[in-house]
Amino acid sequence: MVGSGLLVLLLPIPDGISVEGWRMLAIFTATIVGAIVQPIPGGAIVLLGLCTTIFAGVLTLESALSAYANSIVWLVVAAIFMSRAMVQTGLGTRLAYLFIRAIGRRSLGLGYAMIGTDLVLGSVVPSNGARSGGIIFPIATSLARAYRSEPGPTGGRLGAFLMVLLYQSDVIICAMFLTGQASNLLMSELARQVTGQSIGYLQWMIAGVVPGVLSLLVVPLLLYRLHPPEVKETPDAARIANEALVEMGPLSRQEAILLATFVLVAGLWITSSWLHLNYTVVALLGMSILFLTGVLRWEDALSERIAWDVFIWYGGLVRLAAALNEFGLTARFAEASAGMTGGWPWAAAFAALLLIYFFAHYGFASITAHATAMFIPFTTLVVAAGAPPMLTVIAFACFSNLCAALTHYGTTPAPIWFGAGYVTQGTWWRLGLIAAVTTFVIWGTVGVGWWVLLGYGA
Amino acid sequence: MVGSGLLVLLLPIPDGISVEGWRMLAIFTATIVGAIVQPIPGGAIVLLGLCTTIFAGVLTLESALSAYANSIVWLVVAAIFMSRAMVQTGLGTRLAYLFIRAIGRRSLGLGYAMIGTDLVLGSVVPSNGARSGGIIFPIATSLARAYRSEPGPTGGRLGAFLMVLLYQSDVIICAMFLTGQASNLLMSELARQVTGQSIGYLQWMIAGVVPGVLSLLVVPLLLYRLHPPEVKETPDAARIANEALVEMGPLSRQEAILLATFVLVAGLWITSSWLHLNYTVVALLGMSILFLTGVLRWEDALSERIAWDVFIWYGGLVRLAAALNEFGLTARFAEASAGMTGGWPWAAAFAALLLIYFFAHYGFASITAHATAMFIPFTTLVVAAGAPPMLTVIAFACFSNLCAALTHYGTTPAPIWFGAGYVTQGTWWRLGLIAAVTTFVIWGTVGVGWWVLLGYGA
Repeated sequence: MVGSGLLVLLLPIPDGISVEGWRMLAIFTATIVGAIVQPIPGGAIVLLGLCTTIFAGVLTLESALSAYANSIVWLVVAAIFMSRAMVQTGLGTRLAYLFIRAIGRRSLGLGYAMIGTDLVLGSVVPSNGARSGGIIFPIATSLARAYRSEPGPTGGRLGAFLMVLLYQSDVIICAMFLTGQASNLLMSELARQVTGQSIGYLQWMIAGVVPGVLSLLVVPLLLYRLHPPEVKETPDAARIANEALVEMGPLSRQEAILLATFVLVAGLWITSSWLHLNYTVVALLGMSILFLTGVLRWEDALSERIAWDVFIWYGGLVRLAAALNEFGLTARFAEASAGMTGGWPWAAAFAALLLIYFFAHYGFASITAHATAMFIPFTTLVVAAGAPPMLTVIAFACFSNLCAALTHYGTTPAPIWFGAGYVTQGTWWRLGLIAAVTTFVIWGTVGVGWWVLLGYGA
Repeated sequence: MVGSGLLVLLLPIPDGISVEGWRMLAIFTATIVGAIVQPIPGGAIVLLGLCTTIFAGVLTLESALSAYANSIVWLVVAAIFMSRAMVQTGLGTRLAYLFIRAIGRRSLGLGYAMIGTDLVLGSVVPSNGARSGGIIFPIATSLARAYRSEPGPTGGRLGAFLMVLLYQSDVIICAMFLTGQASNLLMSELARQVTGQSIGYLQWMIAGVVPGVLSLLVVPLLLYRLHPPEVKETPDAARIANEALVEMGPLSRQEAILLATFVLVAGLWITSSWLHLNYTVVALLGMSILFLTGVLRWEDALSERIAWDVFIWYGGLVRLAAALNEFGLTARFAEASAGMTGGWPWAAAFAALLLIYFFAHYGFASITAHATAMFIPFTTLVVAAGAPPMLTVIAFACFSNLCAALTHYGTTPAPIWFGAGYVTQGTWWRLGLIAAVTTFVIWGTVGVGWWVLLGYGA
C-alpha cells in the first residue's frame, strides 16, 4: 500500500503537473490500493489518506476537511438513518409479509414477493445491507426453516433457491436506482467529474426501469430452472405471513409516520428537478421528521456504525477524487488516453472496456472499491474514444452494480446470503456467472438501446 | 422549545438586523432551549437546529454543512479516539497503579495518586468521561471494595471519601487545560468570537497551573477534614497496585506506542505557536499513528458513540454561533448591552456577572449547555462594561468548569461518581457547594491576580 504510493513518487512527473499534484496522485494510489488490500479497514485507510494530504502539504487542513461538509455525503448519512428506521419499526418486514400473503403460495411467487419488497425499498433505502441483509434475509431464512430446509442435506428443499435468487435480484435492484446502493451516489458524483453532469434520481430510475424489470423477469425464471427448489408449493408461507401480520396488528403510529415520510421523500426526489430542490435538503427533511417524531432515536443513530463508516470513507474518497481533478490529473489522463484509443471506433472501446471493467469485479470486495479505482479512468478512456458521455457514465454506473453478481463478496449483502451456508462456493460462482452474463447481455442490448432512445446516444 | 423560537419571531426586529438574521436568532434560541430541556437528546436537537437553518432559507446547504469541516470539531474527534486508546490499552490504568504504588499507603495519598493520574491524562485527553469515568472510577471503586467499603453502612470506610474527592478534583483539572474537557475547545472558539483571539493550549495551561495546583492542594485537604474516611491507612492499596502491575507485566508494544504518541502530541501542542503547527493537524497525526500501528482499531472508533455525538452537536453549535455573528447579532447585542452596564465600574460587572454565571450551573446538566447558552452574552456584557477582553474570556472559560462542582449532574462523570451510591444527594450538594465556593475564591483572587501578572489585565 505504502509501496504503491512511493512507486508513483519515483516515476517522472509529466508536463503540466505540479509536484503537489504528483504527490496527490501518490496518496490517491496508495489509498486505493489500501482500500482494496485492506491491511486495516477501508474507512481507516481513507481517513489516513486524507490526513496524509494535509501532512504532505498537498491540501490545507480546511480544504481536506471540506470532505465532511459535502452535501452528497450527508445525503447518504441521512438516508442510512432513515433505513435504520425502516428496519427498526418493522415497516419493511410488514411490507414483505404483505407481499408474501398476496403472492407467496408457490416458491417462485414467494421469491417474487421478497423481490417486490426489495424493489419498493430500493427506491428510498440506499443501504443494500439494511434492505437485503437487514429486512429480507431474516424473513427468507425463517421461511426456509419453516419448510424444514436447513443448511446441509435439506438445503435444496427451499433455502438454497431463495438465497441465490434473492441475492441475484438484489444486485439487479441495486443497479436500478440512484438509491439502489450507497456508492451509486458516489458514481453520480464521479460522473459529474467526467461529463460535467451528475446522474439524477429520476434520470437513473427511468434509465434503469426497462432493463431492470426485464432482468427481474428473466433471471429468477432462469434460476428457478437451473437451481430449482424441491418444494414448489408453499401455502404455509402465506399462512405464516398472515399470522405474522395479525400479530403485528394495524399499522403503528411510528410505521405510519415513517411510511408518510418515505412517500414524501421519494416524491420530492422525483420532482426535485421541477421544484429545484436539492436531494440532500429533502433527505435531511425526512431525517428531521423522524427525529422530531421519535420514530428514530438519537441513541440508535449514534450506534449506527454503518452510517459513520460510510460518512468517513465516502467523504474522504469524494474529496480525494475531486483533488485529483483540481490538480489537473484527470484532464491530463484523458489527454494521454485519447491518444491510446484514438484509432478505435468508439463502440469497440465502449464494449471492450465495459467487459474488462465488469469482470474485474472478481478482484474487488465491494462495489465502492471497484468504482473508486476504475470508474474515472475507464469512463474517461471511453469518452476520449468518442463515446457519448452520458451513455458512458450511465452504463458504467449500472454495470458497476450488476457485476456484484459474480462473487460471494461482491457487495455488502453477498457474504450475508452466502454465509447462511445453504450453497457451496462452486454453485454460488457458477450461478453468479450465469446471472451476470445474462444481465450483461440484457443491459448491454436492451439497456443501451433504451438509453439511446432516451437521447443519451448523442 | 419551538415556542421559544416562535416568541423570538414575534418580537420586533431591531434596526440593522435582517429578517434572515432574526430567524437565525429564533432558531438559535429554540436550539439552546431544546439543548437544556432535552425533549430528545442534545445531539439530535442541534442537528435539527442546523437543518432548520437550511429549511428556513437562513443558511445555504453548503454553508450549514460547513459545520462538519470545522477543524476544531475534528480536533475533538481525533482526541476522543486517542482517549479511547488510553482506556483500551490499559495505559491509563497502569499509570494510576504506578501512582498508587508510589504514594497510596494512606487514604489521602491514595486519593492524590488518582488525582495525579487524572492531572497527567488531562493534558491530552479531552474527554473527562473517559478519563475520570472510564479510567479512574473503576480503580477507585475496586479499591474501596478491597477495603470492604460498599455503598450503605460501610460506605464511610473509604468509598464515600474517594467518590467526592476524585470528582471534585476532576472538576478542577477540567479547568486547568484546553483539553481538560471537550467543551473547553468550544469556549476557546467562542472566546475568539468575542475578543478576536482564541485561547491556546499553552496559554490555557499556564493560566491554569497556579490556581489549579493551589486548588488541588486545598480542596482535597478540606474534604479530608470535612468528610474523612474511617480507614486512614491503606497499605493494601499499594500492595494491590503492585500485584496488578506485576500481572500486567512490562509495557506492551501498544502501550509504548500510545505513550510515545501522547508525548509527541502534547509536545507539539505546547510548541505549536513556535512551530506554527495547527492543533488539529497534530491531533490528526496522533490519531493516524494509532490507526496505522493498530493500537486503535477502526471498529472501535466506529463504535465510539461519544465521538460521533460530540461531532454532531459540537460542529452544529459552533456553526450556529458563528452564523449569529455573521448576521451581526452578536455585535448588535454588544452595542445594546454596552448601554446597560455603561455606568458600572468594570470590576463590579465582572464580579457580579461571574457570580451569576457560576451559580446558574445549578440549572444546567452539562458544561456545554451552560457555556453555549451563556458564554457569549455574559462575556460580551462584561467586555462592554470595560473589562480587559482576554482576562474576561479566560476567567469565564475556567469558571465554566469549576461550577460543575455544585451538582451530581454538572458534567459527564458527575452521575458516574454520584451514581456509585456511596454518598447521599444532600452530602454531595453540601460538599459540592463548599468545594465550589473554595475554588471560586481561589481562582477569583489568586487566579485573577496571576492572569493580571501574565499581562491579561491590559
